[in-house]
Amino acid sequence: GASTELGGFGAMFDLEAAGYTTPPTLVVSSDGVGTKLLIAQAVGKHDTIGQDLAAMLYNDIICQGAEPLMMADIYSCAHLDISTAASVIRGICAACKLANCALVGGETAEIRGIIKDGVYDVCGTAIGAIREGDKMLPLKDEMRAGDILVGLASSGCHSNGFSLIRKIVEGQGLRYSDPAPWEQGSGRSVGEALLEPTRIYVRSVLGVVKNGLIKGAAHITGGGLLENIPRMHDKNLASELDAATWPIPSVFKWLKKAGSMDNDEFARVFNTGLGMVLIVSPESQDEVLEDLEMAGETVYVVGKMVERAEGEGCVIQGMEIWDQ
Amino acid sequence: GASTELGGFGAMFDLEAAGYTTPPTLVVSSDGVGTKLLIAQAVGKHDTIGQDLAAMLYNDIICQGAEPLMMADIYSCAHLDISTAASVIRGICAACKLANCALVGGETAEIRGIIKDGVYDVCGTAIGAIREGDKMLPLKDEMRAGDILVGLASSGCHSNGFSLIRKIVEGQGLRYSDPAPWEQGSGRSVGEALLEPTRIYVRSVLGVVKNGLIKGAAHITGGGLLENIPRMHDKNLASELDAATWPIPSVFKWLKKAGSMDNDEFARVFNTGLGMVLIVSPESQDEVLEDLEMAGETVYVVGKMVERAEGEGCVIQGMEIWDQ
Repeated sequence: GASTELGGFGAMFDLEAAGYTTPPTLVVSSDGVGTKLLIAQAVGKHDTIGQDLAAMLYNDIICQGAEPLMMADIYSCAHLDISTAASVIRGICAACKLANCALVGGETAEIRGIIKDGVYDVCGTAIGAIREGDKMLPLKDEMRAGDILVGLASSGCHSNGFSLIRKIVEGQGLRYSDPAPWEQGSGRSVGEALLEPTRIYVRSVLGVVKNGLIKGAAHITGGGLLENIPRMHDKNLASELDAATWPIPSVFKWLKKAGSMDNDEFARVFNTGLGMVLIVSPESQDEVLEDLEMAGETVYVVGKMVERAEGEGCVIQGMEIWDQ
Repeated sequence: GASTELGGFGAMFDLEAAGYTTPPTLVVSSDGVGTKLLIAQAVGKHDTIGQDLAAMLYNDIICQGAEPLMMADIYSCAHLDISTAASVIRGICAACKLANCALVGGETAEIRGIIKDGVYDVCGTAIGAIREGDKMLPLKDEMRAGDILVGLASSGCHSNGFSLIRKIVEGQGLRYSDPAPWEQGSGRSVGEALLEPTRIYVRSVLGVVKNGLIKGAAHITGGGLLENIPRMHDKNLASELDAATWPIPSVFKWLKKAGSMDNDEFARVFNTGLGMVLIVSPESQDEVLEDLEMAGETVYVVGKMVERAEGEGCVIQGMEIWDQ
């Protein structure tokens, strides 16, 4: 439904042409890539940052039960380097295709005195829509103790925790061009491995959302599992995860050890291997797992919802396994 | 139509609740405030920057014939100063009220190593809508030689040209705390006068848009009159302005002289006193002028559309008057 006339003052998106027959509810999310950008700078590789940005936005949009439609980006720097900017924006376009979305508009700004020399910032806003009659997520009233928590494998660090990651890497005396110590034999450098782009869950999760099979979805970003999972459920319930049920990617194992992170900090900063966590009824569990696997996701049953008297909104049992 | 549940992953906007009975065409615009931010920093006054941001976005949206609905902002800094950020965001909220819009979502990010210490960046995306059956602007096919150009007074520099403005001010050895030499007796400092917020034309222009009285609207931003007016008309026509028909605000007179700017550069960088230029048919001229004045605008008939054989898309006659 998108069309942009060169030189216009705004980009157009025709909801009717996009198949909406009644006015939908719009969902809007804004975010940036944060200091992962500094690793792209250090490595001189900018073609995956666009996917990070699009993933941060679109993965948020689907958590509300909405179909992502489009995004606009804002690229800021002190001095425009056309080749870097083009690489970033090509990455955004490719990621929009993965999510079946349009890149509309966007702004490129040179703001000397605000952005440091030699670096850039990129952020954006995505817009999604919920069709009339479709359910908005989360369905907090339908959640019950005994509901199942399904975790979707992440592709690595995604786009969060990079200020700490950089501190740990630098504290170890590693350069970004050194071989990544957590994946010996891969041939990737520290920088290349850390730049692994954020997984976009749009197509797979939208499938189970549209089938009405899930009650809630949490995008695991800054705040990690402990802070993001409770964003989708009421305070009368708690999410209880079993740390033995999903594998910790080697990059996180290395970061935890090198950074001497305790379990609580680890689960509050990183996704620890789960980029998205869904709440489903026990009856829907098999169908959800099958649908997600068919759509290419690696999925784990990672815990369940429990009654909550007092205490934390999200509890992870058996975290000591992370130190073994 | 806006509702945001604290802690959700995206903000909601219900188009039906906002009065849309069929799916509208959405219009999206993204922008930032640019280096005007550095003047806010120098003066330590952050409560008008929000209006600058909202104005940059919403004034673009109305140029497409759309009703602005909402915006999301992204505030980035190295170290968050709560009081500064709150001042900026309160300004955005107040400006949204002026435009009858909602501030939805928004993101606040600390990105050390990208944003310089002690400053911040703020940018955003606005979303507007065109009702089914309403006309999208510009109506390029309906424009004719003889159509009238109506200019709406700006409130000053708005949010463009500030890299040059800062260079000129600094080249004159002026501090931002010195009295503004172009408005002696006002009691305002250079910095305070330059921070005059960008005028928001939403309510006034939307009135004449909805009455079907205008064929095109151009928001005069970076590129000035010469580059922005041709964005709304085809290449077979040219816009011809008469420099004697509108007054040049004193700040621009001072900048032109202090910066030794030639006429072409002056009209390519600054709005020169016109923040918005409309194309109307001669028959609609009186009604448009009356409606806009009733809505509080100061308006001038600044020129007309002419046939264009070759040459520039926008020509300003009699620019030598600017040097008198």
